[in-house]
Amino acid sequence: MLTLTTFRSVPSFAAGYVRDLRVRWALEEAGLPYELRLLDFPDAALPAYRKEQPFSQIPMLQDGELKLFESGAILLHLGQRCPLLLPQDPDARAQVTVWMFAALNSVEPYLANLAVLDAFHAGEDWAAGARPAMEEMALKRLRDLDDWLAGRDWLAGDFSAADILMCSVVRLMDSTDLLQRFDRLRAYQARCMQRPAFKKALADQLALYKQEPAAA
Amino acid sequence: MLTLTTFRSVPSFAAGYVRDLRVRWALEEAGLPYELRLLDFPDAALPAYRKEQPFSQIPMLQDGELKLFESGAILLHLGQRCPLLLPQDPDARAQVTVWMFAALNSVEPYLANLAVLDAFHAGEDWAAGARPAMEEMALKRLRDLDDWLAGRDWLAGDFSAADILMCSVVRLMDSTDLLQRFDRLRAYQARCMQRPAFKKALADQLALYKQEPAAA
Repeated sequence: MLTLTTFRSVPSFAAGYVRDLRVRWALEEAGLPYELRLLDFPDAALPAYRKEQPFSQIPMLQDGELKLFESGAILLHLGQRCPLLLPQDPDARAQVTVWMFAALNSVEPYLANLAVLDAFHAGEDWAAGARPAMEEMALKRLRDLDDWLAGRDWLAGDFSAADILMCSVVRLMDSTDLLQRFDRLRAYQARCMQRPAFKKALADQLALYKQEPAAA
Repeated sequence: MLTLTTFRSVPSFAAGYVRDLRVRWALEEAGLPYELRLLDFPDAALPAYRKEQPFSQIPMLQDGELKLFESGAILLHLGQRCPLLLPQDPDARAQVTVWMFAALNSVEPYLANLAVLDAFHAGEDWAAGARPAMEEMALKRLRDLDDWLAGRDWLAGDFSAADILMCSVVRLMDSTDLLQRFDRLRAYQARCMQRPAFKKALADQLALYKQEPAAA
């Protein structure tokens, strides 16, 4: 049995963007059923949870006795049993892992900085001064990505776990207008989000957070 | 033959911290000989290089016909032929990949933000205002890591590729005094850096940048 850990409730602006979505999407692509383990937000900071997840984050995935965190590592694990997520040919597999790490280390940090600045620091004195440098870094990565997508439908050969991670990362820009400048990237994002597995995963996350009372 | 791409020269403050070090270290641990391909910094922005490395970054590793970027993906690839980097038991391997992604996605972005602020934006009006929030995020991750290391010599079982990445990430704090607060983390970093493979990799990188004129 596969068990996915996520928060029981989140602030309303986060619904549809909680990081368990990456894992839900991969599980749907792989056709693997799973159950949820719902964590109350304050409990993430307690020693019992931090023994499993030292950074107090979600998602986690339990697969039998194995407990994993980090969405990249979870998708790599699921890829062992689903060639659609991770091809079996060693060279093709290596290229998919390149793009999984690229999404999480070369792109996400820059987009997340901008999203966090806008969401949590917009009212602070220094935020307006900091924003141009942060936007410039985010734009550089978006431009690089847009260039890479010339003549490509997916990042590395066929659709893979790398596209799940990259599309999720690019969605961090939904609250900005930066994507308007990048036609290929927007078409790529739309291609990803048209997949039935994405739609099912998103609908399931939204349904959870509609049922539950919002976090304080 | 393995070929590692890195910059021909770097500003003096970067010597010893260029990201090819992660790959050099892994290659030394694995006992794999390699040659260098030296890239002039401006050439990284040219279309010819961006076809191989869309973000204009180093390192890259060429292994026969296979060309890889992203240090995490390169270490994962090298781990296929070196169980010291990546154990063969599937559950142990999964835990190592958890900590590889944790180093690059849950720790590095926060430490890098602080290091980049200090190195490149210290003179700007907004930097002093931005620093407390950035330092707080970096401290949280360092504290989480320090707690995890209680009773552990390495992040996930024996020494692995995860420790190469995490030690390299933690070294981003060398220009601050934040590590002084975390005894276990400093002991861990020292344990990593006492390894002959680390010392050899560092000495080789420093030797390269001593020979070459500094970048403009």
